[in-house]
Amino acid sequence: MVNSPRSVPENLASRPHVVVIGGGFAGVAVAKGLADQDVRVTIIDQHNFHTFQPLLYQVATAGLEPADVAFPIRTIFGHARNVRFRHGRVRRVDQSRNLVTLGDGSEIDFDHLVIATGAVATFFGVPGASQFAMPLYTLSDARRLRNRLLSVLEETEVRGDSDGASPQLTFVVVGGGPTGVETSGALTELIQIAIKRDGLRLDPARIRVVLVDMAPRLLTGFPQRASDYAKRRLESSGVDVQFGRSVVDIDEHSIHFEDGERVECAAVIWAAGVSAGDALPQDLSSTSGPGGRVRVSADLRLLDSANVWAVGDAAAVPSMDGAFCAQLAPVAIQSGRHCAAQILHVVHGEVTTPFHYHDKGIMATIGRNAAVAELPHGVVVKGRLGWLAWLGLHLWYLVGFRNRLRVFINWTWRYFDWPSGPRLIVADAETVD
Amino acid sequence: MVNSPRSVPENLASRPHVVVIGGGFAGVAVAKGLADQDVRVTIIDQHNFHTFQPLLYQVATAGLEPADVAFPIRTIFGHARNVRFRHGRVRRVDQSRNLVTLGDGSEIDFDHLVIATGAVATFFGVPGASQFAMPLYTLSDARRLRNRLLSVLEETEVRGDSDGASPQLTFVVVGGGPTGVETSGALTELIQIAIKRDGLRLDPARIRVVLVDMAPRLLTGFPQRASDYAKRRLESSGVDVQFGRSVVDIDEHSIHFEDGERVECAAVIWAAGVSAGDALPQDLSSTSGPGGRVRVSADLRLLDSANVWAVGDAAAVPSMDGAFCAQLAPVAIQSGRHCAAQILHVVHGEVTTPFHYHDKGIMATIGRNAAVAELPHGVVVKGRLGWLAWLGLHLWYLVGFRNRLRVFINWTWRYFDWPSGPRLIVADAETVD
Repeated sequence: MVNSPRSVPENLASRPHVVVIGGGFAGVAVAKGLADQDVRVTIIDQHNFHTFQPLLYQVATAGLEPADVAFPIRTIFGHARNVRFRHGRVRRVDQSRNLVTLGDGSEIDFDHLVIATGAVATFFGVPGASQFAMPLYTLSDARRLRNRLLSVLEETEVRGDSDGASPQLTFVVVGGGPTGVETSGALTELIQIAIKRDGLRLDPARIRVVLVDMAPRLLTGFPQRASDYAKRRLESSGVDVQFGRSVVDIDEHSIHFEDGERVECAAVIWAAGVSAGDALPQDLSSTSGPGGRVRVSADLRLLDSANVWAVGDAAAVPSMDGAFCAQLAPVAIQSGRHCAAQILHVVHGEVTTPFHYHDKGIMATIGRNAAVAELPHGVVVKGRLGWLAWLGLHLWYLVGFRNRLRVFINWTWRYFDWPSGPRLIVADAETVD
Repeated sequence: MVNSPRSVPENLASRPHVVVIGGGFAGVAVAKGLADQDVRVTIIDQHNFHTFQPLLYQVATAGLEPADVAFPIRTIFGHARNVRFRHGRVRRVDQSRNLVTLGDGSEIDFDHLVIATGAVATFFGVPGASQFAMPLYTLSDARRLRNRLLSVLEETEVRGDSDGASPQLTFVVVGGGPTGVETSGALTELIQIAIKRDGLRLDPARIRVVLVDMAPRLLTGFPQRASDYAKRRLESSGVDVQFGRSVVDIDEHSIHFEDGERVECAAVIWAAGVSAGDALPQDLSSTSGPGGRVRVSADLRLLDSANVWAVGDAAAVPSMDGAFCAQLAPVAIQSGRHCAAQILHVVHGEVTTPFHYHDKGIMATIGRNAAVAELPHGVVVKGRLGWLAWLGLHLWYLVGFRNRLRVFINWTWRYFDWPSGPRLIVADAETVD
């Protein structure tokens, strides 16, 4: 091996050090905004990759591969000589000493610290939920869910052999937000493909996908007609949509509702909510907002802090109407970008400016061929065109410039190739009997 | 969901039942040969996919994704109405009752049984090897090895931070056969790419890949000049090739040789050998040949059996010179095909014919840009053209007709895209501190 290590600018060590905790949309946006500027940046994440979360449901339903939605953080910043990646988990933050401590005990000091730790699935204390319900928030979640879904289909076919009749099979998706809508739509398509292409001997009439929510409609953040459209699309593809249903407890083989009904099911997919508080490092001195999110002032600094910032899902980002921005990818990206600019202002002795969220619309996909979007001024877009627009938009904003073409080709290929794509059960441990 | 289950020919249940244990090259070749013939076939595997083993080393070195080298067995036989897949592990074979028992206790009866169980890594009783050395024979092996290699690179960079100097890092590959040669070549390329593209701050001069073998040359099944070429290519890409080295024991951080030397290393990759015997189901009444392989007569039936057959790596397939065929993919495929034809002969009351292996040459790749092949009549082909020929040949023979174009496009794409491809550490359990 003959390459020498990359040369590093002479004055790098003397620059202000910005530590970013988290390599999600928000953290990556911060680091991108600081790349090749006169600071040095360390981005810390427990995974060595950035996850494109909006498409995790496709990994879970065997439509995309893990590598299609995960991008190594090192590769994203391979060109930026002032950005380093550190693989690890932050355990503690010491604001008085400007120090973070990692899980392996090592300490990293900072001049500025950015909390971009995102959120984790929350089970609202429902008994059995954390043990038996399957969230869909990380790449590991998606892989586990895929293995479970495919294994259940295999086992159910075998059961059908012994007693002659095709067994009943029910999947319950809890939560009618974008993740729940997307997952239940994709799940019905996965089952149809598995029967048609892979020759699974199952009776489609005896397989149910049930989507439940406490609210009286789907996609509560969207206008009513978007919700109605999503419901119609899901029902026409066979999803049983049920409103006003509150989950009381979950065990290995069933889910129990407040009205007393107990539904036998093969898997419960948990898309009911996230908590920012559970994802925060210990000892962070912060004021807690809705969903455990860190309260920040208009320039995204923690209340009463001069050099600690919070962005994305972890932060209760003030919105113009006096409330808080929703936990959405565009908010994460815009707040991350704004934060980077403000840190540079502070470093240069300039005044900071308040963050304003530019709402370019919200969007959810339903299965693989339809999306529903609300654009500004109440415009609602539906159907396959909406889906492609959604993909294009996300690609443009979210993936690094150098990767865009590559990822676009990969996704287009996988999209059209899906019916014959690989539905693999690949676990680290080999557990099949 | 409105599809009805696929219709099944009326007389299927009355046809002779052929049970194939194993969905590797040999088992798939048997089932392909029996597809749409007047038998019914059940192919049993503990994985729901067929693994393209010759490219596992590329998964281990982050060149290909698991989905690139794994094909669901259901999808391969989705068109064949007389072939069923059963996901499970065979525990016992009862030849007197013509019955196999699966790990979940269920029993499957057969008229003909085909043993295509392949082989598993064997550690020759070297202390610590089964615990600390990493084999490369299954897709799980490849994923584990990839996670280990990438994690080690991350950890080593961090260690370099604290004491200033770039730390020493050694990987040892045990075994100079095709797997060892391919893996050590690809590993040096992975390290170079990780430093150049991902900006890992490591000194390439302090990273060693050592390939050791007891024999005095690489690729012992190949002619001498192929071995010499492989050694030159590996050494020019930085691999330290050492002959006549016998491993005494392995622990978590080092490997100990018979001559007394102990080498500190970050990982030991075990490519030293396989055993067929350890992969066989219990209670199989068979005569053991070299490497624990099942002895078979010329028509591939077990000695003294009328309806139990063995093919591929599991079988000691007689060769024309009175010895046994090597455990190679072409032998597996040809013996599987021959076995299917013989089963049909027996079913139709015809006489069986002896198996003859048609040697079309052997081949090994070295890194990503070179291969060495021995064709019949002593012709040796080298270089990048050889690599492409190797790929094309394997594709043609090994992948189902319907998948060929798709897989070829995927591979070509990944091949040229490799430098910016995803080097992900994705484990089922999240273990990073």
